[in-house]
Amino acid sequence: MLHLKSESSQRWLDQVEKHTDLVLIDHAHCEKKAAGTALNLIFAYVEDEELCREMTSIVNEELEHFHMVLELLKRRGVKFRRLKPSNYGNQLHELIRNQEPQRAVDRLLIAGLIEARSCERFGLLRKHLPDAELRDFYDSLFESEARHHAVYVRLAKHYAPESEVMARLDELAAAEAAIIAAGDENARVHS
Amino acid sequence: MLHLKSESSQRWLDQVEKHTDLVLIDHAHCEKKAAGTALNLIFAYVEDEELCREMTSIVNEELEHFHMVLELLKRRGVKFRRLKPSNYGNQLHELIRNQEPQRAVDRLLIAGLIEARSCERFGLLRKHLPDAELRDFYDSLFESEARHHAVYVRLAKHYAPESEVMARLDELAAAEAAIIAAGDENARVHS
Ligand SMILES: [Fe+2]
Ligand SMILES: [Fe+2]
Ligand SMILES: [Fe+2]
Ligand SMILES: [Fe+2]
Repeated sequence: MLHLKSESSQRWLDQVEKHTDLVLIDHAHCEKKAAGTALNLIFAYVEDEELCREMTSIVNEELEHFHMVLELLKRRGVKFRRLKPSNYGNQLHELIRNQEPQRAVDRLLIAGLIEARSCERFGLLRKHLPDAELRDFYDSLFESEARHHAVYVRLAKHYAPESEVMARLDELAAAEAAIIAAGDENARVHS
Repeated sequence: MLHLKSESSQRWLDQVEKHTDLVLIDHAHCEKKAAGTALNLIFAYVEDEELCREMTSIVNEELEHFHMVLELLKRRGVKFRRLKPSNYGNQLHELIRNQEPQRAVDRLLIAGLIEARSCERFGLLRKHLPDAELRDFYDSLFESEARHHAVYVRLAKHYAPESEVMARLDELAAAEAAIIAAGDENARVHS
């Protein structure tokens, strides 16, 4: 249950097939950013024991994914390098409310939506990519991103009643779907 | 070989004995910050493969230490909470040069000096604390902080010739010793 309001389009799959190396490089950056997000949440909500424990696992797993993508790039002879990120993350972060505890709810739900979208897209890649190595690779990541999504949504309920959290998740998921529908001219994991 | 220019004084040991709980809470924050430092270095120098690999291990280990300190606090009935940090970190960070690659050298060497000072102080705590549980605890952390120090110094040599790195380490270690000699009125790991 990923709480997404849309499915990724053929447009995106076409971008990935045309610019696979770019998407792979961007993917490595995304895993690194996912680790950073989880660590920042520890810093921000350090009194929340369950959050600290779960975020520690996520930091470790995302860094493991980061190295898995780096290894894949190396095997394929693609040099890892800096890359302009898609606008997706910034546009989502603008939706975060400033006041606590709403801010905590939004940070967790947005992190959860990014996990959900990654998961949904890895699900497409594991089915539709022509390259078997890449299909297997995305298959191996699919499940942990779904799990991360569920963790973030569960933790958001530490900061607001469940009904409020689910209503806000609904709003943010609609905004997320609109950002994804607008797309990005550069081929990226979240373009 | 910790490259420090001074030994911690009895003044600090007295602070720790008087305000052990504060120092333990601060210690948890320090482990979290150490994880953050290592992750930020991955972000800044992501093309450096060895750095990314080593920093990933350090992030994992520092988060493990963070949870070890949290467990210790819980066993001792001390509530973990926010705490004004000592001025040590900020004063050291002011010494970082702005231009790359000197900036990389300084960030790595300062991270290495913080590890070295922690290690030196854990070495004192494992000998001198009256509480056996705490002595064992600091004994268990001593070795990994020494190892982290060595990793940071080695990685700095990716960004300048060895002779330059060692000359700069000498300078920064002198500054670090002066900051430690001045002390901090609040009892902290680096007061
Ligand atoms: Fe991941
Ligand atoms: Fe994830
Ligand atoms: Fe540590
Ligand atoms: Fe360390």
